[in-house]
Amino acid sequence: MVDTITIPTASDMHVHLRQGSLMSMPNLQPPISTTEMALAYEAELEQLAPKVTFLMSLYLNPSLTPQEIKKAANAGIRGVKSYPRGVTTNSESGIESYDIYYPVFKAMEEEGMVLNLHGEIPSDPEKNVCVMNAEEKFLNHLKDIHLAFPNLKIILEHATTEAAVTMVKSLGETVGCTITVHHLQLVVDDWAGKCHNFCKPVAKYPSDRAALRNVIKEGHPRFFLGSDSAPHPSHMKEGPEACAGVFTTPLVLPYLATILESFGALDRLEDFACSFGRKFYEIKEEKWVGQVTLVRESWNAPKSYGFGGAGIDGEQGEVVPFMAGKPLGWKIASIA
Amino acid sequence: MVDTITIPTASDMHVHLRQGSLMSMPNLQPPISTTEMALAYEAELEQLAPKVTFLMSLYLNPSLTPQEIKKAANAGIRGVKSYPRGVTTNSESGIESYDIYYPVFKAMEEEGMVLNLHGEIPSDPEKNVCVMNAEEKFLNHLKDIHLAFPNLKIILEHATTEAAVTMVKSLGETVGCTITVHHLQLVVDDWAGKCHNFCKPVAKYPSDRAALRNVIKEGHPRFFLGSDSAPHPSHMKEGPEACAGVFTTPLVLPYLATILESFGALDRLEDFACSFGRKFYEIKEEKWVGQVTLVRESWNAPKSYGFGGAGIDGEQGEVVPFMAGKPLGWKIASIA
Repeated sequence: MVDTITIPTASDMHVHLRQGSLMSMPNLQPPISTTEMALAYEAELEQLAPKVTFLMSLYLNPSLTPQEIKKAANAGIRGVKSYPRGVTTNSESGIESYDIYYPVFKAMEEEGMVLNLHGEIPSDPEKNVCVMNAEEKFLNHLKDIHLAFPNLKIILEHATTEAAVTMVKSLGETVGCTITVHHLQLVVDDWAGKCHNFCKPVAKYPSDRAALRNVIKEGHPRFFLGSDSAPHPSHMKEGPEACAGVFTTPLVLPYLATILESFGALDRLEDFACSFGRKFYEIKEEKWVGQVTLVRESWNAPKSYGFGGAGIDGEQGEVVPFMAGKPLGWKIASIA
Repeated sequence: MVDTITIPTASDMHVHLRQGSLMSMPNLQPPISTTEMALAYEAELEQLAPKVTFLMSLYLNPSLTPQEIKKAANAGIRGVKSYPRGVTTNSESGIESYDIYYPVFKAMEEEGMVLNLHGEIPSDPEKNVCVMNAEEKFLNHLKDIHLAFPNLKIILEHATTEAAVTMVKSLGETVGCTITVHHLQLVVDDWAGKCHNFCKPVAKYPSDRAALRNVIKEGHPRFFLGSDSAPHPSHMKEGPEACAGVFTTPLVLPYLATILESFGALDRLEDFACSFGRKFYEIKEEKWVGQVTLVRESWNAPKSYGFGGAGIDGEQGEVVPFMAGKPLGWKIASIA
């Protein structure tokens, strides 16, 4: 039995960094829609975490032009993010149809930028669309964009369904897929009435979770970590309407080692969390890549993390992390 | 356009009355498992609401005998309630298999008692059972019991799925089905992160809601009101783990008139809420049946109801009702 694992620092290909006090823990208002905004935000983030290589994204919206894409690519911006309208926190200005973006996609394909898709269509009772099938009903959009731009790198983010896994596997080498830590652990029962496990996309059926686990276990190189970690102060979760999001950032690797081991995939930790994402993005240089050593140890995840109280906007509070107070099997021993 | 409706007081064929302070607003601990317990509880309830005819139920459990059924029937107890293990509040002692209850069902059939089924099987990730499909996967139990005891009156309670509607319609005249107020209005999106709409069974897909609405609209006589109204103090809803239940009792008829009218079924209000349930139970005499007059009026449901503070256990708090603060189209003008 393995008791110590040393791997490179993880490459989290989907994370929600914040503004104000919450930024110093890690959706933005207004969205980052120009190269200048992205570079200014990157500079802010780098002050907090000088060693981290941030892959910045623009927000797909009707004012984005092929010219702006070329400018962004020259400035080192790596992706463009698409949210369907209204499906998650601060996504009211999201998209409804992709056709108008084809000139932008063409420019992205030429520049080697990555299209990051939040793969859900908006709920619509008339069409029987709700949070449980919104991802499955999105998948034909992914297929259409891929067929129209076969050399465009596309990532289906935070996949939650067997249908998504099947679709991504069926498409070409330019289509990748991120999976969060929490969707490897949760099913619908776990967020029914439990606000801290509520996120978008919502966790689905046990058979969907099994598909996510299996594609990691088989070591498929186009499926890699994107935590979608999103902290909300606990008072924004525990109330009549909970914000959507699960906070995993501080413990991504201990969570992953614990969960992967539970389904016999501990040996895939490095590929899933560190290698496959970097390969998909063809990352050639990073400011710094450290070595993280995890050790087998039984302990409980913290019940909360405090934030704020000094500087910036003075906002103060606590964030309840994923699996708060629950047992984990692995701990970070050192980062060097 | 109709602006005034006068109908008999509603017959709510499934409601959670309470203990202690919460009883005076309306799952019990321990469950009511003997005739004596049921009669003592009925007496307590009648002190609070002397004009209401309570149809009392026993709790299906391994200590229940055919002899106890005959005794209960003689004492006027009308039903036996079955909960699968662990699927809702205080149901840890529920059933897993019905075979051992066949002698009890036989006695109930002879005595004309009603079997009230909470129609969900327990979640089991290994078998892909979760809160979203637990009802559909239960339906073969209903069919089996009906086929074994075709003269036993059975009610599938709080149906939430198209599959349940289809199954009940396919079975004989002795099989009825209750539908709650809130399942006529909610879909899964409405309880995702919204604790006050979280209940068991959970609300399902828009197509399921449409099936519930359609069976009422067509006036099917074996589908009738059972509110499953279940008050929980707001602090038990707004927290890390919300209690399951929606509180509709004080406004059942205004909610129903508003919701039925929204899908063109206002003319079914009396049948659904008053007549069909009484007919299914063959209720011949009631202590009192009043006349309720509803008038068309735009107003907002209360944001909360206070309870307690005097007598009994001194517990005090507030309960947030269904559609709290939301617009309703009908109001109770008088009860006579």
